Amino acid sequence: MSAKVITITREFGSGGRTIGMVLAHRLGYDFYDHNLVEKLAEESGFAQEFIETHGEDASSANSFIFRFNNSGCDTVDRLYIAQRKLIRELAEKGNCVIVGRCADYILRERTDTLNVFIWAKEEYKQNRVTSYYGETEEAIEKRLINKDKKRIAFYQYYTGRKWAQAYNYQLCLESSRLGIERCVDIIEEAARKFDETGKIEVTD
Amino acid sequence: MSAKVITITREFGSGGRTIGMVLAHRLGYDFYDHNLVEKLAEESGFAQEFIETHGEDASSANSFIFRFNNSGCDTVDRLYIAQRKLIRELAEKGNCVIVGRCADYILRERTDTLNVFIWAKEEYKQNRVTSYYGETEEAIEKRLINKDKKRIAFYQYYTGRKWAQAYNYQLCLESSRLGIERCVDIIEEAARKFDETGKIEVTD
Repeated sequence: MSAKVITITREFGSGGRTIGMVLAHRLGYDFYDHNLVEKLAEESGFAQEFIETHGEDASSANSFIFRFNNSGCDTVDRLYIAQRKLIRELAEKGNCVIVGRCADYILRERTDTLNVFIWAKEEYKQNRVTSYYGETEEAIEKRLINKDKKRIAFYQYYTGRKWAQAYNYQLCLESSRLGIERCVDIIEEAARKFDETGKIEVTD
Repeated sequence: MSAKVITITREFGSGGRTIGMVLAHRLGYDFYDHNLVEKLAEESGFAQEFIETHGEDASSANSFIFRFNNSGCDTVDRLYIAQRKLIRELAEKGNCVIVGRCADYILRERTDTLNVFIWAKEEYKQNRVTSYYGETEEAIEKRLINKDKKRIAFYQYYTGRKWAQAYNYQLCLESSRLGIERCVDIIEEAARKFDETGKIEVTD
């Protein structure tokens, strides 16, 4: 039996999105990352731009200034709730890979879901981000920190979990040492032979 | 190229030791776990019993009462230093799997070392420990907590690292969901194709 859903929680520049995409292709699964934004915009009525800005960024939601001064705060929470609803529906349909957006936490009760965390060393993430998105005026070190800081804040704010905790995933992989392809191989291997009943027993 | 050394940091009852043993057998590598105690006793002059008690238990070393009242404290530190020396020598020889004893941290500068963390759900660990070591008067929940608490204290005391942090390992695996055999397969796959130069580059 295979895992019906694979969630990938990843650091910015770690290649987690690429890993998810190749994996989905190999397994013949749907892939949800950026296209989740479009789907969500269709179903929820949120503007695509708003989702892109706040869909994985809680820096506004957990800022006191924002929370109390800006009426958009409740909207960020409502966006999270809409995302959660959509992610649950997609998981119910099954056969998909979902990247980011606290999907691991949202689907934590499902036994058919394989949760994966991808991280990488700073140098690797810097190289990837520069080669994919090009140079900007902002220094690469700062870009990485800013992006990851927001993502981590979003994750911790809505899940109450700590970032990069092995206990939240069946698999954690360092893409900078294992390489993108090896990561895909490993997740595929685990996904194809995943006990979706969630049964726990002594196997040896 | 293969990883020359594989370190396995594991929770009590997670099956990490079994995983390491089967893996070493498959790769034709030496396996160091309990036999490290004998080797260390030979080379360092420490009594086997003392190593068994203090080799992965810092509850004495990081207790203030013990530290200031009991002259054995320095001995525990010296035991750690002797273990560290031995682990470095074994890694230098290569082709081995080392379980526990902060080997991941001790060998952190080596690029030919694959560091793995194995954890499992409580129910799974309880079942394994009871089936392997039998029932005792002490409740199984308490046995697990006591053993893991000491191991984690030892690890955190001597490495300054947090337990179960994905960043300290190339691979973290939940044995209770993936199963012992799948864990061995995954580590073997990663170990056999490990870039031992430690070179980090954008690979796709």
